[in-house]
Amino acid sequence: MPTAGALIIGNEILNGKVEEANLNLLARELFDLGIELRRVVVCPDDVTGIAADIRRLRGRFDYLITSGGVGPTHDDVTLRAVAEAFQRPLIRSPELVAKIREMVGEGCTEGHLRMADVPEGAELVSTPDVPWPSVVMENVYVLPGVPRIFRMKLPMLRARLAAGRRFYCRAVYTSCRETDIAELLDRVVDAHDDVDIGSYPVMDGDYRVKLTVDSRSRSAADLALAALVEALPAGAVVRIDGGVRASRAAETR
Amino acid sequence: MPTAGALIIGNEILNGKVEEANLNLLARELFDLGIELRRVVVCPDDVTGIAADIRRLRGRFDYLITSGGVGPTHDDVTLRAVAEAFQRPLIRSPELVAKIREMVGEGCTEGHLRMADVPEGAELVSTPDVPWPSVVMENVYVLPGVPRIFRMKLPMLRARLAAGRRFYCRAVYTSCRETDIAELLDRVVDAHDDVDIGSYPVMDGDYRVKLTVDSRSRSAADLALAALVEALPAGAVVRIDGGVRASRAAETR
Repeated sequence: MPTAGALIIGNEILNGKVEEANLNLLARELFDLGIELRRVVVCPDDVTGIAADIRRLRGRFDYLITSGGVGPTHDDVTLRAVAEAFQRPLIRSPELVAKIREMVGEGCTEGHLRMADVPEGAELVSTPDVPWPSVVMENVYVLPGVPRIFRMKLPMLRARLAAGRRFYCRAVYTSCRETDIAELLDRVVDAHDDVDIGSYPVMDGDYRVKLTVDSRSRSAADLALAALVEALPAGAVVRIDGGVRASRAAETR
Repeated sequence: MPTAGALIIGNEILNGKVEEANLNLLARELFDLGIELRRVVVCPDDVTGIAADIRRLRGRFDYLITSGGVGPTHDDVTLRAVAEAFQRPLIRSPELVAKIREMVGEGCTEGHLRMADVPEGAELVSTPDVPWPSVVMENVYVLPGVPRIFRMKLPMLRARLAAGRRFYCRAVYTSCRETDIAELLDRVVDAHDDVDIGSYPVMDGDYRVKLTVDSRSRSAADLALAALVEALPAGAVVRIDGGVRASRAAETR
């Protein structure tokens, strides 16, 4: 199962001035995605400390999601820390500069343009509903701390992280008709709620119904497959397929 | 200045089934006590992992406060982890056994008595208003995760932790946007390194950004506040908060 760490950045959380409000939302989102959140760290606005935490957490888990420290003020140091963690310079993104000039218009200052500084090599990921792109650096996803905006970024996160997931897929091809196996299918489905079981009859072929088992868990898929094979009448199994398939999100690309 | 770390223990926080509810309370309590909370870690119910975190955090900071994992079920492993971190055995405390027998009466089982197992050498700290003592092992304060009970333990924590010096807190509420004042903030921050300056934008309100100044030194806080107010554009100051945020510990003495 893929794993994740989270880094919540901000003195205001540690001194209690602001109540942390993104962790539970993120935890539920990752759980829904089948990603195991293994560790959360709350740290102060200190570039070197944040960089060290980023290096550690991103090395230990498949994904690291950060929250906070991406505004324009002196205490917003997350992107500098990401750059330091990856030993890359901060560069001014022409794409973001254009976006800022468009949004701010005449009064555009250095304070505004600072928001265009990103680590060299970072991806800028946009979704249609959020005007400002998110910075993704390899397996590090940089999210803002303001809960309302953090929330808006979750579809981006979901789209990106879901693409990497895999399903373990199995199939049994049987000479039985669907009507003949409906009840036994029900029983197997009830007993294996950690898999997705499908039934696909065909008109021509050396079998009548293809039964599929999809799961994020290899062992769950194998157990459900074994239960199906055992439940089918003797001699009704034409053949069995096993193996890994890329995620649906990946397929639709 | 005294420092603290916090370790929040529980799979239920990481998988999002339960929303963390003690951190902000603890953070404010420590801030009021003049103790700097420097790091919070949320970790799973894993004895070895918790023990490693306890060793690291208690070595790095003056105090470590843990939350969670002190009930009687299989996933309550914090005291075992504390024992492991200190390389001490878990022993059954006669004091706690007596207390349990008194509370439970006839139907006292091994399940109940398990709550009497504490690391050898641990202190049991009682306060008049809480029936169940808290385990303190050197600089490690073991608190329960259930928010209602966590809350009840705070007077114990307050009484035990040496009350540090107070913070002097100031705030300016401004109608400026963060991007507009980023540069002037930088200048004030650079010129006042004995204060901690924070910048907190809000979405709704009669101001756009709250700028905070915290310091151990009253004069440093006042000087930085004055510098901020002077640096802001004329008419951009909505209001100013000054005065001392005395620690509760100091007040109740």
